[in-house]
Amino acid sequence: MALPERILMGPGPSTVPDRVRRAMAAPTLGHLDPRFVELLDETSSMLRELFRTSNELTFPVSATGMGGMECVVANLLEPGDQALVCINGLFGGRMADMMERYGVTVHRLEKPWGEVFTVEEIEAEVHRHPKAKVLAIVHAETSTGAHQPLEGVAKMLHEEGMLLLVDVVTSLGGHEVDLDGWYIDAAYSATQKCLSCPPGLAPVSFSPAAVEVMERRKSTVGSWYFDIGMLAKYYQGRSQRAYHHTPPVNSIYGLHEGLRIILEEGIDARIERHAKMHRRLRAGLEEIGLDYLPEQSLHTLNCVLVPKGVDESGVRATMLDTYGVEIGGGLGPLAGKVWRIGLMGHSATQANVDLVLAALVDCLE
Amino acid sequence: MALPERILMGPGPSTVPDRVRRAMAAPTLGHLDPRFVELLDETSSMLRELFRTSNELTFPVSATGMGGMECVVANLLEPGDQALVCINGLFGGRMADMMERYGVTVHRLEKPWGEVFTVEEIEAEVHRHPKAKVLAIVHAETSTGAHQPLEGVAKMLHEEGMLLLVDVVTSLGGHEVDLDGWYIDAAYSATQKCLSCPPGLAPVSFSPAAVEVMERRKSTVGSWYFDIGMLAKYYQGRSQRAYHHTPPVNSIYGLHEGLRIILEEGIDARIERHAKMHRRLRAGLEEIGLDYLPEQSLHTLNCVLVPKGVDESGVRATMLDTYGVEIGGGLGPLAGKVWRIGLMGHSATQANVDLVLAALVDCLE
Repeated sequence: MALPERILMGPGPSTVPDRVRRAMAAPTLGHLDPRFVELLDETSSMLRELFRTSNELTFPVSATGMGGMECVVANLLEPGDQALVCINGLFGGRMADMMERYGVTVHRLEKPWGEVFTVEEIEAEVHRHPKAKVLAIVHAETSTGAHQPLEGVAKMLHEEGMLLLVDVVTSLGGHEVDLDGWYIDAAYSATQKCLSCPPGLAPVSFSPAAVEVMERRKSTVGSWYFDIGMLAKYYQGRSQRAYHHTPPVNSIYGLHEGLRIILEEGIDARIERHAKMHRRLRAGLEEIGLDYLPEQSLHTLNCVLVPKGVDESGVRATMLDTYGVEIGGGLGPLAGKVWRIGLMGHSATQANVDLVLAALVDCLE
Repeated sequence: MALPERILMGPGPSTVPDRVRRAMAAPTLGHLDPRFVELLDETSSMLRELFRTSNELTFPVSATGMGGMECVVANLLEPGDQALVCINGLFGGRMADMMERYGVTVHRLEKPWGEVFTVEEIEAEVHRHPKAKVLAIVHAETSTGAHQPLEGVAKMLHEEGMLLLVDVVTSLGGHEVDLDGWYIDAAYSATQKCLSCPPGLAPVSFSPAAVEVMERRKSTVGSWYFDIGMLAKYYQGRSQRAYHHTPPVNSIYGLHEGLRIILEEGIDARIERHAKMHRRLRAGLEEIGLDYLPEQSLHTLNCVLVPKGVDESGVRATMLDTYGVEIGGGLGPLAGKVWRIGLMGHSATQANVDLVLAALVDCLE
């Protein structure tokens, strides 16, 4: 299987370190093997450290990040519920779409792609819809690079009896994510962004308040595959693990090793590395005349405007063919208008930043 | 990451060959990388060979086998539809449960666990429920080892305007499965059984008639993650692949290699190997006084009754600890009463058969 050599500097997947790839290749154990169950528990425990939470219900869903989103949405909400969804990019819109499929009435708080929400704006929306059960918001919008501040949001929601659901797909492992400190009730992420594991698993975590709400559900969860009640009997089973599905054993080996790498580096040091690499990339991009989408940018996802007259996809193709460097194009209203440069996990190195800059300079000449 | 050495002779996962494990460890490519898209197309094309179908809509769902079941159920059926489900074990029951979650009225045709259905029994049920849209049946019941004959079923259903949905999780790659020859409209499988890849992907295939039914849907598919309309835009996209989710790139490498191994061996030769190993195992088990669950047994899953007075889980624990051999216990009404011995893919060798027999003799002494 001949594969080209690539440096993954797009919106994900990021480059996977050798240690993780070697772990993926370890012999497959049975999903009820005592040693595998131990590895699974260690994985959940490391995920808790990374999420900065003591939430017992924390584990990797056997699907990609979008499956994590569906798991959280399908379990937290019931048909007939109301929810507020903040939409300033692709992924907020997807949460709203998913909720509607599960029979939820969605109130959309929309802003132009790339902008973020203030606590005041969210508060006003909450007061307009006092019966809503959940507010959903994207911490790190992979489609735009917008970095949504979350401090203070949960406090106001909890006073109104609402839960806070957050997408941390592109922030976990690259930006500060503090589930307990920010009082987040449910969050989902993905392995192929700042965790630098292959795609295929979606770490999720639910607060005790969220668990209580799910236990009080009146209706069966619409999805069988993502039903938390049954999943918890396997992932949280004490002496006995009830078979629900056969989790992706080797992908969990990879995640286990990826989390070990993160904890060895240190979460704070890792976040600081992403910040430093972002500053270096940003300075370089601005020096060659490229502008970021306005407002707060993520460190992990750098969304820059394509200069007028430049062939957007042609530049990406040349970068891939000549340099082996993958960067991303725009989605939705930003298609053809932006490049998305990822600085995620193992990809966020000084060598890669300088290579991207050199390649871009060459392609834009 | 220290792992014990295991020989996987349970209901799955089966032992994964080195070539597949090495493929899993190859560097991750982006999901839109031209080379990855090529590998994905090759994977779908090999899946068509294995399914013995020309169905264009054939690809691996980014979830485990149970996610494949949900993908087929959620797309083929709509709220308000009627379906017939044949239940003679755990997995038929799960299909019925899943359908009800998607708003379908389910008519259950039940038989004791382990038995199979005759065409006449199915036909009588079809005539009782002429408005049903789909009949769902399990070809290879992993919970019991029952091997359901399928010849003639589709013809009768198609005359009544119904579709045939089949679970081939434990038969694909180990028993004859002939989607086009048997006129099956939708089928799902899993990678960790007779394909001997790690768990994490669910091959699915839909006939043109099934595609037409899905295109005529009046309602949005209840699940976002499993929505075929969006999935097809990525998996079948011609010049352009529309991003829906990021598929498990390295798991697809593994499946690609696993399918190459199968086609090198030859599908017919592989099926014959499974038959031969089953005959050897069965003769050995009967020689030591163990009886199969009555009726037709799968070659790939051998379900034998635990003799009176024997500590069922104790024997499994000793086999695991002393021999490194994993076999399975029973589920549901068969819990504590049977052992399930898998002969799947790479695990189905003469050495493994003889080892299982030797270990069982030792444990039963």
